[in-house]
Amino acid sequence: MPQIRILTESDLRKVIDLDMDAITCVENAFHALATRDVRMPPILRLDIDEYNGEVDVKTAYVPGLDGFAIKISPGFFDNPKLGLPSVNGMMNLFSSKTGMLEAVLLDNGYLTDIRTAAAGGVAAKHLARPDARHAAIFGAGVQARLQLRALTLVRDITSATIWARDIAKAEACAKAASRELGIPVTATTDGKEAASGADIIVTTTPAREPVLMADWVAAGTHVTAMGSDAEHKNEIDPALIGKADLYVCDSQAQTRILGELHHAIDAGIVGTDDTFPELGQVIAKSAAGRTSARQMTVCDLTGTGVQDTAIATLARERCDAANAGVEISS
Amino acid sequence: MPQIRILTESDLRKVIDLDMDAITCVENAFHALATRDVRMPPILRLDIDEYNGEVDVKTAYVPGLDGFAIKISPGFFDNPKLGLPSVNGMMNLFSSKTGMLEAVLLDNGYLTDIRTAAAGGVAAKHLARPDARHAAIFGAGVQARLQLRALTLVRDITSATIWARDIAKAEACAKAASRELGIPVTATTDGKEAASGADIIVTTTPAREPVLMADWVAAGTHVTAMGSDAEHKNEIDPALIGKADLYVCDSQAQTRILGELHHAIDAGIVGTDDTFPELGQVIAKSAAGRTSARQMTVCDLTGTGVQDTAIATLARERCDAANAGVEISS
Repeated sequence: MPQIRILTESDLRKVIDLDMDAITCVENAFHALATRDVRMPPILRLDIDEYNGEVDVKTAYVPGLDGFAIKISPGFFDNPKLGLPSVNGMMNLFSSKTGMLEAVLLDNGYLTDIRTAAAGGVAAKHLARPDARHAAIFGAGVQARLQLRALTLVRDITSATIWARDIAKAEACAKAASRELGIPVTATTDGKEAASGADIIVTTTPAREPVLMADWVAAGTHVTAMGSDAEHKNEIDPALIGKADLYVCDSQAQTRILGELHHAIDAGIVGTDDTFPELGQVIAKSAAGRTSARQMTVCDLTGTGVQDTAIATLARERCDAANAGVEISS
Repeated sequence: MPQIRILTESDLRKVIDLDMDAITCVENAFHALATRDVRMPPILRLDIDEYNGEVDVKTAYVPGLDGFAIKISPGFFDNPKLGLPSVNGMMNLFSSKTGMLEAVLLDNGYLTDIRTAAAGGVAAKHLARPDARHAAIFGAGVQARLQLRALTLVRDITSATIWARDIAKAEACAKAASRELGIPVTATTDGKEAASGADIIVTTTPAREPVLMADWVAAGTHVTAMGSDAEHKNEIDPALIGKADLYVCDSQAQTRILGELHHAIDAGIVGTDDTFPELGQVIAKSAAGRTSARQMTVCDLTGTGVQDTAIATLARERCDAANAGVEISS
């Protein structure tokens, strides 16, 4: 009778955090995507318009990893009215060799938060200037704080600015981030001001219209846009992709449809069939990354199944070692 | 903190069986597919060629049902060498209103078996002659027995024949079915002989080449082909679809790609854009079913997410009522 380990969010928080191990785990996943025979099918998407809900299902098989995750991410945007979080999620981990279910990770989206922020860290590690010091984060939610923390793991970030439409939210996020990271973090509602002087800019919003304009971004800056994971989402001015010296994405099959690239194609700035390097290729050095301090670089992240499989595999290994969770025979 | 009910195969077997309730549950699901604003995205498919494995993920939102299931079905065909079953599976049930995970159904494919066989019962109920008495089943696996049992629930089946390439398997299946259903069941390796005199034929094999030829099927017969759920699978002679008076499918979006229809299109027997009634439309009477005893009818079943959502919802209701399973807070 199969033994299935059931892991709660609390079990998972004890063993996985946003640290260099998480960044290395996600970096290895992108490396595998570029160098191994990874299978990553298109995202399954279910829309439940009646309740303002959407569900994404992602997966990937990574040769060499014992398991593959099937990650389910519901987002129901009327939930806050009911006192519930909008975004949720869980992962199922199966044996790559037998397809048997091995673990159910009831993480409520925690592992997705970690692997998403870790990807921002990986992008900055490979694309930002080595001497990057000041970061600007657009958005004031969970990812705003996590993305900033991820940057501090890969660069010597000494100050930051948080932009949000709502100054109270920007200030609360800035205060919390400053306390957590021990660096000065300011807040603003002026996007141009936020972008000014930033060596790294990360956009973390669910915006449907650009919040970061091309004119605001100086030479030498690295921009990661990670908020867009659906066709109607758009955080950065499509002109920025035209203006950048280097555009890199997590998965071009996805960014053509879901990411910022999609809007640059629609605007006629990029051709439908133009090809761009993926982050894994930059990591594997089969494509060039930043080659000078003056270059403007953009990384377009939509979130990939390889990240889910990688973080779930790490979480399971650590939970096994800690004998965490409960085993159910079925 | 969300409460999630974990249900084992044993819990589920106690509350769900292949009976008229299961058939009605699946019939209602097909009815909804034809009459309500059901959302049923394309199947997510992951192939792991290295281990002869494949994974299907199916889902559907059915307005009016409290939950939607996301069903994961791995099939790893080298598993028997390891003493493990080839086919497996589990379902996750989420609230339609909030997207919160409510139940994890560790059914090892049991609910899929039931909802699949129930669809065969629904097809026969609406398409077979009311006076159908003799059934022929192609295949000798779990679905062979379940499909035959489903037929006995909707028609007064008084005898049956099991066809398989391996006579020992056919005989074992026939013996078990005869004991279970209390009717004579014979076994044969001769497909033509099996089809001869059958009022209803159900094919339940993973065949890649037709096992049922058009010439073998007499006027008045109803044929359900339910084994093909992938592009390379093909159970019935494409000419049979040309010869039949009525072709009905569970989901034409699926049968055009995965079902028997796909092979009839490839053979030039059916046009790429030809449209056919779906089973739900026949149930809802928005499309004609059988109109005479002389008609030959074919139903092409690939398995749909609405069936999964329907059976998972029924299983959860019954487990709630029985207070089955364990609750985990996460």
